[in-house]
Amino acid sequence: MEKSYLGDKSKVKRIPNRGHYDEKTLFEIIDNGLICHVGFCIDGQPFVIPTLYGREGNKIYLHGASTSRMLKSLEKNIPVCITVTHVDALVLARSAFHHSMNYRSAVVFGKATKVSDEDKERVLKVISDQVITGRWEEVRKPNAKELKATTVLELIIDEASSKIRTGPPGDEKEDLELGIWAGLVPLNTGFGAPQADEFVKGEETPDSVIKL
Amino acid sequence: MEKSYLGDKSKVKRIPNRGHYDEKTLFEIIDNGLICHVGFCIDGQPFVIPTLYGREGNKIYLHGASTSRMLKSLEKNIPVCITVTHVDALVLARSAFHHSMNYRSAVVFGKATKVSDEDKERVLKVISDQVITGRWEEVRKPNAKELKATTVLELIIDEASSKIRTGPPGDEKEDLELGIWAGLVPLNTGFGAPQADEFVKGEETPDSVIKL
Repeated sequence: MEKSYLGDKSKVKRIPNRGHYDEKTLFEIIDNGLICHVGFCIDGQPFVIPTLYGREGNKIYLHGASTSRMLKSLEKNIPVCITVTHVDALVLARSAFHHSMNYRSAVVFGKATKVSDEDKERVLKVISDQVITGRWEEVRKPNAKELKATTVLELIIDEASSKIRTGPPGDEKEDLELGIWAGLVPLNTGFGAPQADEFVKGEETPDSVIKL
Repeated sequence: MEKSYLGDKSKVKRIPNRGHYDEKTLFEIIDNGLICHVGFCIDGQPFVIPTLYGREGNKIYLHGASTSRMLKSLEKNIPVCITVTHVDALVLARSAFHHSMNYRSAVVFGKATKVSDEDKERVLKVISDQVITGRWEEVRKPNAKELKATTVLELIIDEASSKIRTGPPGDEKEDLELGIWAGLVPLNTGFGAPQADEFVKGEETPDSVIKL
């Protein structure tokens, strides 16, 4: 049987048919993202910080400066929530009440631990590949000083839920005759033309960028 | 003097020159967003939930079904963190270490309270306008039953910080001669062509959609 990430924390209670707990749906949403929002609590005070990430199996990787307040908090093995969200369309109904968004979101729960010094560089490549596949091979790798200045954390996914809304507005039957336009407006995200910096002298746009 | 939202929670410690605490920068980032990520803690467990929002003065509004677990938690006047993030570009350096993103993020701290029944409809319009200005005037307004099924919260911004990175990669001087391409790849977000639903019979695309 396929693994389910359903649990007390992750169970979608409102509109339960939008909730999914299988690995395939979860990993697809995570793998299609560029940034996540990391939530943690310090003395009951929540913090929500956007950051890059990578995924490998049932692990989410985070990284940053060793001096980062977020990473120094997370490495203490406290509960963490990581959310990846894609907004796909505005859902414009005939009534204000039925306005909505089409979206895909993954909400992941777990605890983080430090990745060992030996494993750091390999995991940094996983994060790099999440953002732009193949870039790692094109650039100067981190030296000992840079690796030391970087903390890398791994979070084993304990519970998780995916939430997805697709399709047209769900208007009330009696509103269909109001003569009001309704439908979807897709939200598109894409990369624009690369802008070489001032020190590029004839180096061609690399494969990693062309393939974005 | 202009209001500052600087505080113990909001102070940007890493790369402090990326941190801003003025109202103008903060409100611009918030007002340009479509969704926020709301963070809250229940018994030390963080939750990070994507949702729509609106802003009016120094207040952030949230809404949803009265049965929503998030809103039922937040209305108990617990500490909340709301984050709005825009990713503007991939920053591709010559070294793995100096890869980054250009981004603008607003991290807001405060506590939420319920908006009164009398004020609900007005505040729902503020949220609607944040997503698509003018749509509210085109559609059927919420009836008494729909208003009752909706909880609206307001959060007065207590502390906040804006974080912004712009500009090219910050490569080490000795890496500039490596012959590696470096620069920015902009990330563009925009609305696609509207898709009328199956019940539209000749109603023209409304102004609110055309102006998106």
